[in-house]
Formats: sequence, structure tokens, C-alpha cells
Amino acid sequence: MQTEIITIGDEILIGQIVDTNSAWMAQQLNSIGIKVNQITSVPDRMEHILDAFKAAESRADIILITGGLGPTSDDLTKPALCNYFNSDLRFDETAYQDIEALFRSRGKEVTPINRQQAEVPQLCKTIYNKNGTAPGMWFDKNQKVFVSMPGVPHEMQAMMTGYVLPELRLKFNLPAIVHRTILTQGIGESVIAEKIKGWEEDLPKQIKLAYLPSIGMVRLRLSILNSNENSLNEMEKEIEKLLPLIKNYVFGFDTDTLEKRVGEELKVRNATVIATESCTGGKVSHKLTSIPGSSAYFKGGLITYSNELKQDLLKVKTETLRQQGAVSEETVREMAGNACKLFKTDYALATSGIAGPDGGSAEKPVGTVWAAVAGPNGIVTRKFQLGNDRFRVIEVAAQSVLFMLLKEVMKTAK
Amino acid sequence: MQTEIITIGDEILIGQIVDTNSAWMAQQLNSIGIKVNQITSVPDRMEHILDAFKAAESRADIILITGGLGPTSDDLTKPALCNYFNSDLRFDETAYQDIEALFRSRGKEVTPINRQQAEVPQLCKTIYNKNGTAPGMWFDKNQKVFVSMPGVPHEMQAMMTGYVLPELRLKFNLPAIVHRTILTQGIGESVIAEKIKGWEEDLPKQIKLAYLPSIGMVRLRLSILNSNENSLNEMEKEIEKLLPLIKNYVFGFDTDTLEKRVGEELKVRNATVIATESCTGGKVSHKLTSIPGSSAYFKGGLITYSNELKQDLLKVKTETLRQQGAVSEETVREMAGNACKLFKTDYALATSGIAGPDGGSAEKPVGTVWAAVAGPNGIVTRKFQLGNDRFRVIEVAAQSVLFMLLKEVMKTAK
Repeated sequence: MQTEIITIGDEILIGQIVDTNSAWMAQQLNSIGIKVNQITSVPDRMEHILDAFKAAESRADIILITGGLGPTSDDLTKPALCNYFNSDLRFDETAYQDIEALFRSRGKEVTPINRQQAEVPQLCKTIYNKNGTAPGMWFDKNQKVFVSMPGVPHEMQAMMTGYVLPELRLKFNLPAIVHRTILTQGIGESVIAEKIKGWEEDLPKQIKLAYLPSIGMVRLRLSILNSNENSLNEMEKEIEKLLPLIKNYVFGFDTDTLEKRVGEELKVRNATVIATESCTGGKVSHKLTSIPGSSAYFKGGLITYSNELKQDLLKVKTETLRQQGAVSEETVREMAGNACKLFKTDYALATSGIAGPDGGSAEKPVGTVWAAVAGPNGIVTRKFQLGNDRFRVIEVAAQSVLFMLLKEVMKTAK
Repeated sequence: MQTEIITIGDEILIGQIVDTNSAWMAQQLNSIGIKVNQITSVPDRMEHILDAFKAAESRADIILITGGLGPTSDDLTKPALCNYFNSDLRFDETAYQDIEALFRSRGKEVTPINRQQAEVPQLCKTIYNKNGTAPGMWFDKNQKVFVSMPGVPHEMQAMMTGYVLPELRLKFNLPAIVHRTILTQGIGESVIAEKIKGWEEDLPKQIKLAYLPSIGMVRLRLSILNSNENSLNEMEKEIEKLLPLIKNYVFGFDTDTLEKRVGEELKVRNATVIATESCTGGKVSHKLTSIPGSSAYFKGGLITYSNELKQDLLKVKTETLRQQGAVSEETVREMAGNACKLFKTDYALATSGIAGPDGGSAEKPVGTVWAAVAGPNGIVTRKFQLGNDRFRVIEVAAQSVLFMLLKEVMKTAK
């Protein structure tokens, strides 16, 4: 079962947008046991598109295509498919009704150009689009499948989830791949590898381990191809052996995020938190509020970016700021401790550091970040050295303080 | 001049990471007049890698390869290159010294595996890596160039900037492509297209226009291939004709962002701002603080996620919250107006809305967001309907209030 993804669109090749669709699609395909063997990005040029179709068909059984379905003259995917499959167009009344309904909900009339978007190749099955004007298309050719979808992430995802993945599952005799991913934060890939070396060497042959590092995190993904009803148990047994080796670093599994885990543990305890941030500038609050329903436990945040606000809003002592500086253990201790009391929340977190590129010194180089979490059990503080990449310092500091918060919350009974 | 990018690595094909390298490289190449014609992502498999090299060589003159240069058995790029170019390895003493120095700075010894990373194919020129253990490689073959670089973004970027781009410029007689991008926010692609239709039809033949939409924004990119000393002037003339047609929607050019523009305009006026956010949950503060040096004008932010905090911190009247609700013009007017006075900043912004998926009603559906900006000229407020995708509501609300702030700041003299 070979699968390839083709993304069509100049905007990817000029680097104006990052291709997030392929990564999303690949993850989804993986989850139903389909491996992606190649991803190819081609420009809005007919010949190049047709060559890519041909090359992909020579290698793969499933070819998923995104992009190029818009209403402008640059959008060549549909003409290319008509050409490739030697097919005329037909007018799909249902697709047209979808387009009409969409325009009506925006208080507009359908234009002739948009009406044309309801035309699809005779040969294909229409994949209806509730979220945009371009229907998707499914082509069966011999034992192969071509699917064309819009490049707009939201629209493509709805089509994949609602039609393509279920249909692929039905059509092909898919090996059942089972994954379990263990999520760690705050430890480097080679350090983990060293810690779990013995366990890794003893893994049964059918269980594959992949190290998937990203900024601040390492995901450990266990997979069994051709799984059976024992597979999940086998994996759980191995995970039970693994966890004690890295327990301080594991915050969740599979699709968890730190903010999701924090939310779950706060919610089940009916506990609340307030975030006080300096160098992370709102990132922690933004992560916490990205979880629907977070207003149940997240009371708010104070981005006390200036020393003035640290004093006015959080009553950090002038002496502390003068003697120890904003980036110090004492400052974050006061920020978190005072916030808890002033705003009557169960927990408070604080960050203060030097994100860079300026502001560093010999004593406190760029990347120095102090974090604190205040709660029923007292206040914990910790210092981090996060390097000199501003984006990375902010991201890893935010992750780190959320992980500290998670650990504190989990110390108390539910 | 045909250029292709090949990214090697299973982690891209399983969707565990998003390929940001290609977009970055494509932008950089564009800026020196090189267009990327295809981007191909292949797995860590020797045959597939060799096939990709071969196919790219049949189409392109410049082939840039990232990934697969690590020390593990999955890293096949160097063996593949030795195979493809029929070349033995040689030990590069300088590369080895770089690796030693790197380990020393981390307080570690070089391992035999890492020592092996200093070996490079005889045939290539070494591209030294100050930021990691894998040197890059430059191959000249007939009139073509192959370049292999690590997949770690930071390391690849340093090699591109410090070696590859300058060398490509020297080696090839590059057509000079000139781009100018006009950035708009708050208007849809088809509405702009309608507004600028006449102007677009009258564009001189050598100036190409591309519409590049993204969430909440549309970028209009003008390009002249084979430019000469008149080209920039020609483009400026066309831009001068364009701007009046869409003036309320243009916030910047080229690599500007709303937060960068806001920062510039506040800085030159020695003005300060505080952000008060509800539904945007820290996103606006995070955007503002992503700009180095923002502490000069950004005093801080208050994420008053609960009604309690809106009253306690911002003195929003209990009556207002009870009668109009948190998501109302009066609430954001009080949030911004009071913040300005309480924290003595020149400007304050406020957001309050329903990001979804829950919380909507017939009167205030999901996606309803009120925004306000308070400043020396008074308080402006505006209501937005941003649809029902939580991520999109937060992102577009944050963009919109920053654009309102930018407009208010630019009303006052510098």
C-alpha cells in the first residue's frame, strides 16, 4: 500500500505559506494504517502537475492531491484532472446548492465564476464541501485512488475526516497499525536514549520505537504493524516498564498537550489558576485559553512586562526588584505567591526571564528564565537556561512552567 | 534555472513535524532570483533517496537537500551521496575540530559516532557547521549543483545564509526577480479582487500579481522577472495607483507584521500601550512581545478572562456586565478606557468575545467579538463576526484589534 501526497500551488514554492496540510494528512493516514511514501509540492503549471500525477501513479496506490481548486485562472487542478482522466465536466446540482447556501449565509449572491465551481469531471465521485465553494473529487482508476481536495486546511480536514478516511478504510484491506506515544518535556533526545537504552534493546521485535523530538519536547512513539487483539496489551506492558525510567519527564500520551493536561487536572479538582508572565509575554495564557472551556479554571493572566506593573499589580517589593532584579527567584516567588492571594485562586504561575536577543549579562545570560508555581502546598521555583533563540526561550519557558504547574496540581488529591 | 528541494526524513512523512525548512529556503532563494520548481519529501530509505536525486537531476540545475545527516543508523543521506557520486569518504580535520569545540562547550567528550560525522565524500566541498555536528556538502556536477544540509532549521539557515546563497549567486548568472508585497487585513480575497479589478487589468505586462490569502489577511504580491534598474520604479508607480483603492485595509509591506508596525509607530512617538484581553486570551500580548525590544512600548497585559477580574483589575462596572454582558461595546469601552487611566499608558486595547465552540446565543453567536482602542483621541470600538472556528476567531480578533490600534496611533503626529 503506497500512498503519496501532491500539493499544488505556487504559494508553497515561493515559501509564502508553510505546508501544514501534508503533516496533518500524514498523521491521519498513519492512524488508519496508511504510510505516506512521498510528498511532492508542484507549481500552478499544467505540465508539471500532469507529470507529478504520472510519476505518483507509477509508484503509489493512493494519491491525495490538495490545492488549485479556487475560482481564479491560476487554479489548474480541475482542468488537469479532466486532461489526465480524459473526462468532460458535468454540473453537480447538489454541489451548486452547497455553494448557494454558503453565499446566502454571508448575505451574498453566487457569481458565474463560483457557479462553475460546481462542475466536476464526469468520471469522479463528488466529495461535498460544506465549508467552501470547491467540491472535492474521488477517482477510482484500476485498483488505484486519486483524491483531489481544496488547499484550505479547514475544508480539506472536513473532507478527509468525513469522507476520504472512511472510504479508504472500506476500500483497502488495511494493516491495522497501533501506535502509542509517550510525551516528555524538559529532557534532550540523547539523554532519554541513554536512560532507556536497556529497555529499548529488550523491546519485542514487533514493537518499533521512534524518537520524535520537537522544541522542548521528545515524543516516544511505539508502533505495532499488523496488530492483533493482543497488541495493545503488549504495548501497555512495555510502557509500564518504561515509565519509571523517565517518570519526571512524562506529561501525557498521544494527543495530549501540557495545557490540556493542566486543564483536566484543575477541572477534576474544581481548582483555579492565574498566570503572571513577564518574558513569556502572554504565551502561557494563550496556551491555557486555547482549550475550549478553560474559563472554568483559568481566571486570567497578568503580563507584567514592566517592573512598574510587577509592583502595581502584583505588589512585588521594590527592594526585591532593585536588589535581585526582575529575573530572580525572589521576584517570581512574590509574583506567584501574591497573585494567588490577591486574586484568590488555588494556583498561580509566574515567569520572568531574558528572551533575547538583548538584555543578557555575564551573570544572567540571554535564555535565563525563573519560573514559580504557588499553590496549597507552597511555592516551588526553578531556574532554566534556554539558549539564545528568542522564540525558543519563550516557547520552552511556557512549556516548563505549565509542566511545573501540572506536577503541583497532581500532588493534591482529586 | 530550475531548482528543487528534497527533504529527507521519516518524521516529515508521518506528519510528526511540519516542514518549515522548505518555506524558509524558498523565500531566501526567491530573494536572490531563484524560483523553486518542486519540493519533494522522501523517507529514510536508500532506494527512494537515490530515485529522488535522479529525478531531480533530470529536471533541475540546483538541488538542495536537507535532513538525514545525523549520527544514527536511520541517517542515510551521506551514504546515499557517496553512492550517487561514486565517491569514497575523507576525514575533514577542520570539521572534526568544529565537532570537538561543540562538545567541549557542552562539557562532553566526542564519541566515535560523532567523530564519523567529520567524514565527507572526497568529491565535495565541505560546508562547515558551527551550530551542530554534521557538516554540509556542496557537489558540482557538470553545470549542476547539489547541496546537502542538516534538517535542523537553525543549522541549515546558517549554512544557507553564510555559504550557499552567496555561492549560488556567484556561480549562476541569476535573473534578478523583484517582489513587492502589499499586506492587507480584514478584507476577503474576492472583495479585494473586485475593488482592484480595473487596476489589475491595466498592469503592464511584465508585472505579475499574485493573491496570497491567509487567515484574516490577503497579501498582494507584485513581481517582475528579469528586472532592470527601472523595475523598482515601475512597481512603485503601480503601487501608488493601487493604494487609494484599498487604503483602509493596507497595514504594511513585504515582511511587516501588524505587531512590528504597531511597535514602530509607538516607538517613534515614545508612546506606550497596555493590552486588556478576554477572548483572545493572551494572543495579542504574545504577538506584541514577539518583537525584540517591545518592552520599550508594551507595558503589559491583563487577561481578564473572568468577569471578576474585569471588575477587580479594570473597574468595569457591575451594572455594565449585568445589563450589557461581558461581550458588549460598553464593556470593551470601559476595559480600554480604564486601563489607560489606571496604568497611565498612552494607549490601551481591549477584546471581549465568544471564541466558541460553546457560549453562543441567538443574540450573540459564536464568533461575536467586540474590540476597543483608547488613546489621546478618545475611544474607538468595533464589532466583528468571525465565524465559528475557535482558533480563527482568536487569531483574527487579535489581528483586528492590533490594526485598530495601528490606525489610532498613526492619527497622532510623530
